[in-house]
Amino acid sequence: MTAAQENIPALMHDIGVAAKEAASKLASAPTAVKNAALLGAAASLRASKTELMAANAKDLTAGTEKGLSPALLDRLALNDERIEGMAKGLEDIAALEDPVGYVMAAWERPNGLQISRVRVPLGVIGVIYESRPNVTADAGALCLKSGNATILRGGSESFHSSSAIMECLAAGLAKAGLPEGAIQLVPTRDRAAVGEMLTMADTIDVIVPRGGKSLIERITAESKIPLFKHLEGICHTYIDASADVVLARKVTLNAKMRRTGICGATETLLIHPDVLDTHLSPIVDELVDAGCEVRGDDRARAADPRIVPASEEDWGTEYLDAIISVAVVDDVDAAIAHITKYGSEHTEAIITESEATAEAFLNRVGSAIVMLNASTQYADGGEFGMGAEIGISTGKLHARGPVGVEQLTSFKYIVRGNGQCRP
Amino acid sequence: MTAAQENIPALMHDIGVAAKEAASKLASAPTAVKNAALLGAAASLRASKTELMAANAKDLTAGTEKGLSPALLDRLALNDERIEGMAKGLEDIAALEDPVGYVMAAWERPNGLQISRVRVPLGVIGVIYESRPNVTADAGALCLKSGNATILRGGSESFHSSSAIMECLAAGLAKAGLPEGAIQLVPTRDRAAVGEMLTMADTIDVIVPRGGKSLIERITAESKIPLFKHLEGICHTYIDASADVVLARKVTLNAKMRRTGICGATETLLIHPDVLDTHLSPIVDELVDAGCEVRGDDRARAADPRIVPASEEDWGTEYLDAIISVAVVDDVDAAIAHITKYGSEHTEAIITESEATAEAFLNRVGSAIVMLNASTQYADGGEFGMGAEIGISTGKLHARGPVGVEQLTSFKYIVRGNGQCRP
Repeated sequence: MTAAQENIPALMHDIGVAAKEAASKLASAPTAVKNAALLGAAASLRASKTELMAANAKDLTAGTEKGLSPALLDRLALNDERIEGMAKGLEDIAALEDPVGYVMAAWERPNGLQISRVRVPLGVIGVIYESRPNVTADAGALCLKSGNATILRGGSESFHSSSAIMECLAAGLAKAGLPEGAIQLVPTRDRAAVGEMLTMADTIDVIVPRGGKSLIERITAESKIPLFKHLEGICHTYIDASADVVLARKVTLNAKMRRTGICGATETLLIHPDVLDTHLSPIVDELVDAGCEVRGDDRARAADPRIVPASEEDWGTEYLDAIISVAVVDDVDAAIAHITKYGSEHTEAIITESEATAEAFLNRVGSAIVMLNASTQYADGGEFGMGAEIGISTGKLHARGPVGVEQLTSFKYIVRGNGQCRP
Repeated sequence: MTAAQENIPALMHDIGVAAKEAASKLASAPTAVKNAALLGAAASLRASKTELMAANAKDLTAGTEKGLSPALLDRLALNDERIEGMAKGLEDIAALEDPVGYVMAAWERPNGLQISRVRVPLGVIGVIYESRPNVTADAGALCLKSGNATILRGGSESFHSSSAIMECLAAGLAKAGLPEGAIQLVPTRDRAAVGEMLTMADTIDVIVPRGGKSLIERITAESKIPLFKHLEGICHTYIDASADVVLARKVTLNAKMRRTGICGATETLLIHPDVLDTHLSPIVDELVDAGCEVRGDDRARAADPRIVPASEEDWGTEYLDAIISVAVVDDVDAAIAHITKYGSEHTEAIITESEATAEAFLNRVGSAIVMLNASTQYADGGEFGMGAEIGISTGKLHARGPVGVEQLTSFKYIVRGNGQCRP
């Protein structure tokens, strides 16, 4: 540990100042220069496999000694495929359209003033994440493409791996002639650095926390800086009275079981009483075959004996696991009421053949993403065609749903005149 | 004071709950119903002149006894013209396009999923303002038009006037069958209510503070809820080497002196050395004739003896008065550096005939509004063609520049499928 690192507030202050200076340069950096940095970083990742694996080995050894679970160790591990995946990810981000400078709207006033609303970067984005080394590359690249400076704070178990990836990003920045401050990794594992970061409202414009509920709760409680985040994805799929049984069966299985650990996985199935006898058991067949535990209320259990009792707590639980809860709701109003009471405003779907019921659901459910006859697992920036994303936001301000390069920008108004004076 | 009012946290909690319930109804209220409420309120204002003037007289008497300045008493006073202005303002807001439900973007994915991004209300908006009775009507109406519930907290000196205006708004809501909770005025002058409001992150989505710097500083320091605000409007007009002297003279006079008390008034003039001898004195002629005090740096003073010395403090001061500071800057880079150092990211203008210099300035100045050859006093939602505004935001998140009905909305994604499952 160096002297600078012992003084966390001073260290973080310097990082913040460097980021802000870099941000003012990045704001007008040409697309080609930003892309050159991204492609340079990709090349550096591919050329540094030995160094990356050596750094990762240190993290894995320390993690094993520390007794990390096999799942956490797997998340931490790098290999050829994952390094190639990161490099390819940077190239994909380079290929995205540059959001900065895009004219969102333009109009002329009767007095001849020409007004345009133009995308500009947000400024400095702080990313706080768990021990997933690839987030270092993904998050740094997305912020760079959108013209923002980034301050990255990765989980301490991935410190060596993230530092080695950071060197590759720095090599890309240097090659393109961009300032070092454009992407910085906090060079200490001291957790006080996170607390300090959350107070740096003068230099950091937005914090993006990426991780589990406890990380995000802590950051939400402490942060003086706005967050782009979702706390949980308690997603619902509602099987309406007019749902097609084949479609309902297929989509529910996918929504719950394609991957159980992602935020867009359905956690609660809502079902209309009219189709309880016809639709529920076929759906439960699929779920049980796929290894899913099904918990439900009394009416659901009366319709299918394989369903075990759900408690009040189940309705508000994001399982992130092969478990689903089932509630019988009397109509679309009751479905919406259940979602409003227990949901997390992430993603909800309705399965129905009734256009009127679909529109009622889509219009009245207030979540960031509402779906008709499709799997909630489509809640993803890539699946939306937005390219890579830094996360999904359930906030109502600024960014909502998938947060891609466009959502990492702000805007300003440019007004062109020829001497207009206001009467 | 009633029992409920003695218990501020309980009172505010009830107001928050009522607002949130109303917000969920307003979110899907048809445009015609919202407009009926606005037109009903306008009619009620016109029909209630006697009651409004009587309530206002109470405030004016108390204000006079309290020793309010003539300017504050004038701001507080209602008369026929001002009541008619409020009523007309409500009609103008009714005539605006409804932002809710507007499809901002729509696209289809290769798998057939149809995705659209649709405007939705923000939810509950809290407005905290000084003793300007008309804000009660304006702010309540803008929030209603954009489908939001509003909690209004006006200055205590205008309490009776605001309460009387609130009754007219309530009459409009009742006539249209909208819930009482849609627009609520905090029914106590106790300042603890403001502190309580700023903690109600569960029920209030955004706070809009309207008032002077000290009010906004206090709210910024205390609020747990995001704010749409500008702290100051330290606006600059930069006279470039290639500026037309006639245009520079006319626009600078308007930018400073049209109204000195508004946030878009120019506070500092920046000028290129090449035009110091030709352009400065004609501009100072106009300013001095209009009664403006001109302060400047040494180079400016050497060019025109009427200029008195400016101190370092002047560069960061929002005068809101007939005073301007003048700094000589060596080129557009120096102008941008001065603005970055001392500005408030509100509105800045360049006067130039050079397209290249104009583009450099417009692209690189990071303020919410940047202008070419026009008066900074155009920084206004009405002048932008956006209709009425609730304020100007200098934040980078969500709302920036004039905050009109569109900026009082969020959005959600609607995804329509026919059984898609994610591979």
